[in-house]
Amino acid sequence: MRAAIFNGPGLIEVGDRPNPVLTASTDAIVRVVLAAVCGSDVSYYRAVFPHAVGTIGHEFIGVVEQVGDEVRGIGVGDLVVSPFVSSDGSCPHCQMGVEIQCRSLGLYGDGQSDGGQGELVRVPLAGSTLVPIPGSGHSDATLKSLLTLSDVMSTGHHAAVSSDVRPGSVVAVVGDGPVGLCAVLASARLGADRIIALSSYPARQDLARAFGATDIVAARGEEAAATVLGMTNGIGVDCALECVGSDESVATAFSIARPGSTVGVVGMPHDVLVPAYKLFSRNVGWGGGVAPARRYIPQFIGDVLDGRIDPGRVFDYETDLEGVADAYRAMHERRAIKSLLRIGSM
Amino acid sequence: MRAAIFNGPGLIEVGDRPNPVLTASTDAIVRVVLAAVCGSDVSYYRAVFPHAVGTIGHEFIGVVEQVGDEVRGIGVGDLVVSPFVSSDGSCPHCQMGVEIQCRSLGLYGDGQSDGGQGELVRVPLAGSTLVPIPGSGHSDATLKSLLTLSDVMSTGHHAAVSSDVRPGSVVAVVGDGPVGLCAVLASARLGADRIIALSSYPARQDLARAFGATDIVAARGEEAAATVLGMTNGIGVDCALECVGSDESVATAFSIARPGSTVGVVGMPHDVLVPAYKLFSRNVGWGGGVAPARRYIPQFIGDVLDGRIDPGRVFDYETDLEGVADAYRAMHERRAIKSLLRIGSM
Repeated sequence: MRAAIFNGPGLIEVGDRPNPVLTASTDAIVRVVLAAVCGSDVSYYRAVFPHAVGTIGHEFIGVVEQVGDEVRGIGVGDLVVSPFVSSDGSCPHCQMGVEIQCRSLGLYGDGQSDGGQGELVRVPLAGSTLVPIPGSGHSDATLKSLLTLSDVMSTGHHAAVSSDVRPGSVVAVVGDGPVGLCAVLASARLGADRIIALSSYPARQDLARAFGATDIVAARGEEAAATVLGMTNGIGVDCALECVGSDESVATAFSIARPGSTVGVVGMPHDVLVPAYKLFSRNVGWGGGVAPARRYIPQFIGDVLDGRIDPGRVFDYETDLEGVADAYRAMHERRAIKSLLRIGSM
Repeated sequence: MRAAIFNGPGLIEVGDRPNPVLTASTDAIVRVVLAAVCGSDVSYYRAVFPHAVGTIGHEFIGVVEQVGDEVRGIGVGDLVVSPFVSSDGSCPHCQMGVEIQCRSLGLYGDGQSDGGQGELVRVPLAGSTLVPIPGSGHSDATLKSLLTLSDVMSTGHHAAVSSDVRPGSVVAVVGDGPVGLCAVLASARLGADRIIALSSYPARQDLARAFGATDIVAARGEEAAATVLGMTNGIGVDCALECVGSDESVATAFSIARPGSTVGVVGMPHDVLVPAYKLFSRNVGWGGGVAPARRYIPQFIGDVLDGRIDPGRVFDYETDLEGVADAYRAMHERRAIKSLLRIGSM
């Protein structure tokens, strides 16, 4: 099969790899239809975080080609969404809703397992990992939205849930990447009354508005914080959603969070140290982390299939697998919000 | 009147001060019956945090002597508990339950206002600050327990609430000071199934058991964390309560908190920097802060008056106002868990 290969920072190529085979009775083989490039993939490309040499990618939807004898709930021919990790669904951490700590956790493209940016993927623990999509003949827009459930929509939702967004909430979303934009959409879906998107790029501002943002703040850092505080009578927002992970964005999110609230943090914090007294003295909490996508995906499927949410609009660049290098470059150079790879047919 | 005076680190004396008078129509004058020395008072004594020269203390119960024209809900002769700050109860932050951020916040013993360790205290915003105690003829044990509501019992409860202790929870309390011990009692009151107290002092272990601890871990730091993880099948506890505020205690609390849980932090963190990635990667949240005692006090009064909780047992040293210097020394030297000052009669 053909698959994207990470050969080091800045080096994404397409190569030939052996077709995967079932190695455990709980495995499935999925033929990938659509895959996406994640912000974390770009961070490997930029050498912000390390990544093993080899296959890469962890956001994909596809059609099940083979299943092991013990796979339950998934059959050959099913259209499935994969969360960005595989998990057993039964260990204490999965039961608590924290699959990223699953005692049988599997990562895609970790140097040993297949990555999602390839023609075929062996999925471990397939019955507890893959989510089947009902129906058939889904539109291309629907498939793109289903693909976002794999990671960015679930992650944006995790920010909102971790900050307790509910009907009537006043929300601010720090970050206008795909996750921040999905956090806007997730907040609107949860009934937020006011959604302030911090975004300085016109195309992203437009999409934020389309997803439900009621206000746009184009300033950054301390100026953005002062603006949001001014918009909320100096009180701060009920729910600050941190979707970047930098020192500046974390500081902004905590300074606009009203006392007694919890900041929902889903931007992967790189070397960020949080001054505890700042949280403590204002009773502002820290929630979130790596999203439990497997738990959330089933909650969104109805809304996607019925067209009530359309997170697939975050994709503003697309190519085929052979074009994967430019798909990364487009995000690296900020030409694209998020890149889609068309890998196989339905 | 006589009042304790802070003259700098290590220097607590008793001096004469003018009797307070009503300065606003929302003030009350309270004649203090019992006052306590707080761990934060000891931190001023130790020069860990600064404190203004002048009156000191913020934990007291007493009898109302005078009220301004606009004071509602409190009358002359009422026995009252004061939370450790005064607040208006009506600003957005008070309404959110974060009185420490009240827009009309008043501190006791801040260099201008009376401290609680004195014969008389002018209480600003008395109607929204003081909590009247029903009935009369309360026992000395009851009065001591009512005094703890002023701060330490409310603070221990805030740790438990911030960590979402509920019936069946497995709890660990880091810290065996008065707040940690009250956190044990608060967790038991909320129905926790198992309460692991980290305590290395026999007298405190005994009190922790009396308050509901089911297990005692005498080790500290990484050894304590390994022990607690061993006791919980490697999963960690549902609710870790941080009641110290040191780098070591914060690290211990976060390392024993199970993924998906929130650490309830009420130990005032001094120069603690939290590595964000440690929280993020395990989906462990940070909650808590300075306790909203005013919100909690009314919830405890019935339990104290009916003898269902007896937090006053944290007092293991007592003296009169003239003995205040030794009351501080006793806590500073760890001869006492918590010092009581008998200041006036009922």
